[in-house]
Amino acid sequence: MDSLVTAAIAVRDNDKVCFLHVNYGQRTKDKELECFNNLCAHYHPEKSLVIDMPWLGNIGGSALTDQTIEVKDHNGSLQIPQTYVPFRNANFIAAAVSWAEVIRAYRIYIGAVEEDSSGYPDCRDIFYMSMQKTIDTGAKNDFNIKLVTPVIHLKKKEIVKLGLELNAPFEYSWSCYKNNYQACGVCDSCHLRLKAFREAGATDPISYVEGIIL
Amino acid sequence: MDSLVTAAIAVRDNDKVCFLHVNYGQRTKDKELECFNNLCAHYHPEKSLVIDMPWLGNIGGSALTDQTIEVKDHNGSLQIPQTYVPFRNANFIAAAVSWAEVIRAYRIYIGAVEEDSSGYPDCRDIFYMSMQKTIDTGAKNDFNIKLVTPVIHLKKKEIVKLGLELNAPFEYSWSCYKNNYQACGVCDSCHLRLKAFREAGATDPISYVEGIIL
Repeated sequence: MDSLVTAAIAVRDNDKVCFLHVNYGQRTKDKELECFNNLCAHYHPEKSLVIDMPWLGNIGGSALTDQTIEVKDHNGSLQIPQTYVPFRNANFIAAAVSWAEVIRAYRIYIGAVEEDSSGYPDCRDIFYMSMQKTIDTGAKNDFNIKLVTPVIHLKKKEIVKLGLELNAPFEYSWSCYKNNYQACGVCDSCHLRLKAFREAGATDPISYVEGIIL
Repeated sequence: MDSLVTAAIAVRDNDKVCFLHVNYGQRTKDKELECFNNLCAHYHPEKSLVIDMPWLGNIGGSALTDQTIEVKDHNGSLQIPQTYVPFRNANFIAAAVSWAEVIRAYRIYIGAVEEDSSGYPDCRDIFYMSMQKTIDTGAKNDFNIKLVTPVIHLKKKEIVKLGLELNAPFEYSWSCYKNNYQACGVCDSCHLRLKAFREAGATDPISYVEGIIL
């Protein structure tokens, strides 16, 4: 959902966009890839690229990728949850910068959300500020590449409202950590998404398992 | 060669080591993987991991991975050479940090060389200092992960001398950008390696194509 609205913002603010998707062995990789392909058909980016980072799953250490670690229901804990994938977003951005250097894309958008989210360290503004400096010092930089995190300080309900304003196709987004076909409705990510839609006074168009209160 | 000597330093300075190798579609990937496997057999790391980053090659933009871009002979140019692989070392380190978080490795060694090398931005100390901050802010950091670049300020001949002191098996290292079986002797990397061995008064044990003056 955050990525979708970020994509809609990028489409609004740029003449040309390119879309990057990463498979990293996450439980919902099939559904996420389907969403990505639908978004490409919807927004017609200049280029699109799908890359595989199977090691992010194979090394283990996260409930998102390791089937032996349970995805817990939302419980309001303030600790870094077990769904944290080690240093995932740094891997995503490093790959995006490599591609951006070749295709000369000068902005890289990522839908990280800081306060109103699960508490992942690689979703914090301070991380992206440092990553920007890492790009400035480590990339070829014959042109400047800027990281853009347009929803990082938004509340989830504001992200939903903004997406609705921009006619973002929420039916082509997926937040559930567990399921590929019907969202579970009870994991941390489903909880945040459903709460956001409720608070925005909107209806989430994706399918949830029976008995979930939308 | 720089990675080999860095590995030898890591082995000297730590009780346990783990080795990470990356295939990224480089021309000499077969030879480099063979060297990695030989080094594992030589040093017996606790764990070893080989990961594939085919997109780093597929996106193009580098003579190391794109067969349509020529690997030029050494010519003393001070520009960033065409063998620069876009933001390569950031991708390597991001993957290494992910793995380090899971296996609880608290030091990550990389054999980057700054002054006495080909002039890649992602081999500069300033890049690694920023990358350290990116790790500090973006990783889980229930323990501290430190980047270690022990040869970054050494001259190539000093790296050879240090490797000889540490009995590093130079026969299991590969520097040539072009060839898998006999090093070309004339690319930038071969040039720097051969010069280093000459200045160190040592003989390089690897095989070069006929007619190359060692």
